Amino acid sequence: MATNPKKAVVLLSGGLDSTTVLAIVQDAGYEAFALSFRYGQRHSHELDRASRIAQNAGVARHVILDLDLSQFGGSALTADIAVPKDRDQSEMEADIPVTYVPARNTVFLSCALGWAETLGTGDIFIGVNALDYSGYPDCRPAYIAAFESMANLATKGGVEGTLPVTIHTPLIDLSKAQIIQRGRDLGVDYAQTISCYDPGGNGAACGRCDACQLRLKGFREAGLQDPVAYQKV
Amino acid sequence: MATNPKKAVVLLSGGLDSTTVLAIVQDAGYEAFALSFRYGQRHSHELDRASRIAQNAGVARHVILDLDLSQFGGSALTADIAVPKDRDQSEMEADIPVTYVPARNTVFLSCALGWAETLGTGDIFIGVNALDYSGYPDCRPAYIAAFESMANLATKGGVEGTLPVTIHTPLIDLSKAQIIQRGRDLGVDYAQTISCYDPGGNGAACGRCDACQLRLKGFREAGLQDPVAYQKV
Repeated sequence: MATNPKKAVVLLSGGLDSTTVLAIVQDAGYEAFALSFRYGQRHSHELDRASRIAQNAGVARHVILDLDLSQFGGSALTADIAVPKDRDQSEMEADIPVTYVPARNTVFLSCALGWAETLGTGDIFIGVNALDYSGYPDCRPAYIAAFESMANLATKGGVEGTLPVTIHTPLIDLSKAQIIQRGRDLGVDYAQTISCYDPGGNGAACGRCDACQLRLKGFREAGLQDPVAYQKV
Repeated sequence: MATNPKKAVVLLSGGLDSTTVLAIVQDAGYEAFALSFRYGQRHSHELDRASRIAQNAGVARHVILDLDLSQFGGSALTADIAVPKDRDQSEMEADIPVTYVPARNTVFLSCALGWAETLGTGDIFIGVNALDYSGYPDCRPAYIAAFESMANLATKGGVEGTLPVTIHTPLIDLSKAQIIQRGRDLGVDYAQTISCYDPGGNGAACGRCDACQLRLKGFREAGLQDPVAYQKV
């Protein structure tokens, strides 16, 4: 079997979900092309982690694309608005939080689509998750299906039928605990990942933002210890 | 009538089509927010023209977003592949040309979507054109409709129904000659615009690439003289 492996573009943020997706992609035999964004995040820890994760995983290539969405403003992740802390599940589910970055997944998937077409593949992977999610509209199955339909009208390969686009969402139906268990089975080192919206200067997680709370709950339910460092409070 | 005007995001390349769209948007009473991209074009004349056009039109704001799609390679507009010259209409229509930038309109519209949401508007304008076009898949009505459907699932305002997204394509059914006539009626100064894929160092158009040929044909059919400078050949 000396055939070339299929290529896949994987969106990699350096977080728990996308790092698990990368492991799933490689386990499935794809040659992985990892894509991250410098999009005006308030902290660069994410990109440091993403680079190390990509390197350790031995991806075919890791591209960090500069895209300064903070020029538009409008989100706590890119603008000067406080990250909400200590919210309970019902508060998280009540509305779309200020940490929502307008059209972020749409922008990220669109860039992934451009790279995929250039690479000659239609396989794109994203770690969205419809359970245990933080209220973002662009994490839902209906959204992903609509993006895929659009993508197949947008590209040469999609229109000509030679390179149909598939947006793979291997985590979409999994709980955070199930994601962690799946990653652990695949040998993911979660100590390398970062989920916190507001880490300290040393990169230690705050333990109190929505992302930290969902992550800690996931490890608890999986019966595992989260290996990352948290700030003392 | 002291109500605030409606806001609209307008994709502005500095070319003939998008400059006409900007005039249509302002004529319709919208407050225009112009969006351009530094996406690894081989020449920066486009952006110089776009800036001047935006300024002269008195837009509310003009953002030039850096997005280096040339990291992906794959197009004569961003990579080191020769721009095709002197093709006739049938050659242009025969296939998707190498000047196609993978997923470009998808990426551009996605960023426009993010800005529109931040501004609190759902109105986005793009100067795509299904006639006299150069074979790009992401200029067709079916593609635009699919993008709009996706966008209404992607955003907070779309999902909640408070801010439905509309992708306006006022040029989609017009011939190049009709576009030019419409722009002329609105007072567009086409001397400011640039369409050429491969201008000389002084910004003069080559007159031979697909974009130049379609433009010159449009002016001819409109019975008008193209006011931009062409290279002597």
